[in-house]
Amino acid sequence: MTAPIHINGDRLWQSLRTFASFGATPGGGVSRLALSPEDKSGRDTLREWAVKDGFSCEVDELGNMFIRRPGKNSELLPVMTGSHADSQPLGGNYDGIYGVLAGLEVLRTLNDLNIETERDLVLVNWSNEEGARFAPAMLASGVWSGVFDTDFALSRKDSQNVSFGSALTEIGYQGTRPAKSFPLHACYELHIEQGPVLEAEQTDIGVVHAAMGQRWFDITLTGFAAHAGTTPMSLRHDALCGFAELTLAVENIGNDYAEDGRATIGMVNVTPNSRNVVPGCVTCSVEFRHPDSAMLEEMEQALIHALAKLSVRNLTFIADKIFDYAPIKFDDICLERISQATEELGYRHRKMVSGAGHDACYINRVAPTAMIFIPCVKGISHNEAEEIYPIWSEKGANVLLHTLLTAANEKAC
Amino acid sequence: MTAPIHINGDRLWQSLRTFASFGATPGGGVSRLALSPEDKSGRDTLREWAVKDGFSCEVDELGNMFIRRPGKNSELLPVMTGSHADSQPLGGNYDGIYGVLAGLEVLRTLNDLNIETERDLVLVNWSNEEGARFAPAMLASGVWSGVFDTDFALSRKDSQNVSFGSALTEIGYQGTRPAKSFPLHACYELHIEQGPVLEAEQTDIGVVHAAMGQRWFDITLTGFAAHAGTTPMSLRHDALCGFAELTLAVENIGNDYAEDGRATIGMVNVTPNSRNVVPGCVTCSVEFRHPDSAMLEEMEQALIHALAKLSVRNLTFIADKIFDYAPIKFDDICLERISQATEELGYRHRKMVSGAGHDACYINRVAPTAMIFIPCVKGISHNEAEEIYPIWSEKGANVLLHTLLTAANEKAC
Repeated sequence: MTAPIHINGDRLWQSLRTFASFGATPGGGVSRLALSPEDKSGRDTLREWAVKDGFSCEVDELGNMFIRRPGKNSELLPVMTGSHADSQPLGGNYDGIYGVLAGLEVLRTLNDLNIETERDLVLVNWSNEEGARFAPAMLASGVWSGVFDTDFALSRKDSQNVSFGSALTEIGYQGTRPAKSFPLHACYELHIEQGPVLEAEQTDIGVVHAAMGQRWFDITLTGFAAHAGTTPMSLRHDALCGFAELTLAVENIGNDYAEDGRATIGMVNVTPNSRNVVPGCVTCSVEFRHPDSAMLEEMEQALIHALAKLSVRNLTFIADKIFDYAPIKFDDICLERISQATEELGYRHRKMVSGAGHDACYINRVAPTAMIFIPCVKGISHNEAEEIYPIWSEKGANVLLHTLLTAANEKAC
Repeated sequence: MTAPIHINGDRLWQSLRTFASFGATPGGGVSRLALSPEDKSGRDTLREWAVKDGFSCEVDELGNMFIRRPGKNSELLPVMTGSHADSQPLGGNYDGIYGVLAGLEVLRTLNDLNIETERDLVLVNWSNEEGARFAPAMLASGVWSGVFDTDFALSRKDSQNVSFGSALTEIGYQGTRPAKSFPLHACYELHIEQGPVLEAEQTDIGVVHAAMGQRWFDITLTGFAAHAGTTPMSLRHDALCGFAELTLAVENIGNDYAEDGRATIGMVNVTPNSRNVVPGCVTCSVEFRHPDSAMLEEMEQALIHALAKLSVRNLTFIADKIFDYAPIKFDDICLERISQATEELGYRHRKMVSGAGHDACYINRVAPTAMIFIPCVKGISHNEAEEIYPIWSEKGANVLLHTLLTAANEKAC
């Protein structure tokens, strides 16, 4: 029995450092918005590296980049991996780009070791995953998977009224290939967890079997604004006090559906928001996440129940459900290859659920798909302070290497 | 026994209608900021009316207007009444101006009935009570009472960087008389309640024996911002959930010290205030009001206790006390005259505490002072929808008439 092969951790880390310079911010993060000059610099470098290593690089009509390392039998369905190179406005150095560069490192390692796979391997860099410049998020992978159509994507505008289409042309990344899915044997996305669980449990690898469904609400609570000095407590209809009860009720809903459930109020606006006025109106967001649709439905019902109880305070409410995103269940066979690779490498791993959305959630609609997570420090992400350790990076790429090798060497579908 | 004399309710109402045209807003209120062109129109009209009725009108260096109806013996200390003509940016038609015009109506009624008082009667229109244009509130009455000095007042600037002094010169109301108190036998301010109590209790007159002390705090609660999808409930340090507990604790403090106590959180800001981020920081105001200093101290201690309990959520807090204003106790003899007048007129009345600040709170430092309240509809004030009924207006002015008559006919001290 020989030791399993490994990727080159130093080279991968160096690749990450190079990309950290594209849009580097004073705070140590990156600002690499989709289709920006900084994004173009990253894309150019990725293509240059790919071509230099002998891989082809094709770009589709939404700027999605497909880097291909041919296998022995191009008639077999290819195996895909990848993620995205765009970032939040003040993002970190690993969200998305880690999955792209670890995929490249796998291809390079196979070159180094002269390993030929049965199937083609395809590395993808999806455009505009973050949605920070062009809403919604996961726009180009969504088109590729049939969720949105191409014209919808091209017509999305940023805050400066620049369309996705014109920004794409501006950076020279509008290809001719249709942004339409092609058959895959399997697809993997390797990503940082963006949460604190793996680090807290000192676990190397998350085998991501599901992504949470999400339900988003906009809530308006209305009472009556009144003078804080002249209005006795007994005659108030204080919307903020009702909101406080709602906040604790929402937290309790999250706790009731832990550990997989999440319940969050992230956004609050108080009217008139004046020190000396009893608040007459509060608007807030509520969001629930859970990998099980039935549990999400229960959480929603619990919210409505909590809102109805505010009538004892003489408050009225409006609850608008503005987003309802079903849970994702990843492919069992894809997951099994990850678990097997992790065990062969001797790494600590656990099954887990992705709380965030990822390109893989859309790809899963058209191809057998799964995700691999590595820890990130304190779970901090979408933040310049986002950090991982080189050893975490290396272990994740090793798992990706063996997972892809297994899949790409399977001769039958 | 003859029926007590009455003011002319129709004339008073017409005066109020005329002043409602100075800065009238589409919403039916007024925007008559201190020292604005609209304020000047009101001042000009007030002076014109006063002079036409044979009263003198003196203006001091802060634009405070003193309209005098001489008594038989000008060596006796005068009796003063009045309030302010400035308004909030979207204010109502009665806050302040009612007390000025009811005072004028009393002087006119005495002319009509050829009644000569022993003492001079002085009607005052204080500059910049609201503080909406030039902070702080009650600025000119504060100088007059020795709380602030004149240069401080003249140098206050509005949001357009215009100073009080230059705005005063611009409208032609910078007089030469020093803004310094002169001895008074008694001072009365008649005002709308700006709260809901008198209307709710169907009571005509509030005999205001005290004004609440106020303690204002700025609070910062700090937890840790985290991704709402990837951060399990158990690993959150959610500043908003802690804020919710604080809000309910503050409400409970208010209830514990009812009916005179008030506890309000009016202003809240959440960071980063994003739908998908567990809030890392919440700042808010807390204010307590109570007519008893010892009770205010207990309320403050209860706040600190409530904040300390948030440590179980791994939240830290900062509490800055930014304002500490002692309770005001009005003059017993002044109050007795109001009660007596009200009973002679056969009006329903109750003792009450002012929850808001008024010019009279400062005047009380240098002269025997008290306040008279009339109801306002639903307690709405600082709002275009502020409303009173003519009968309420008339009854308040009748009480003022008899109160002033009693005081102004006292020959001794």
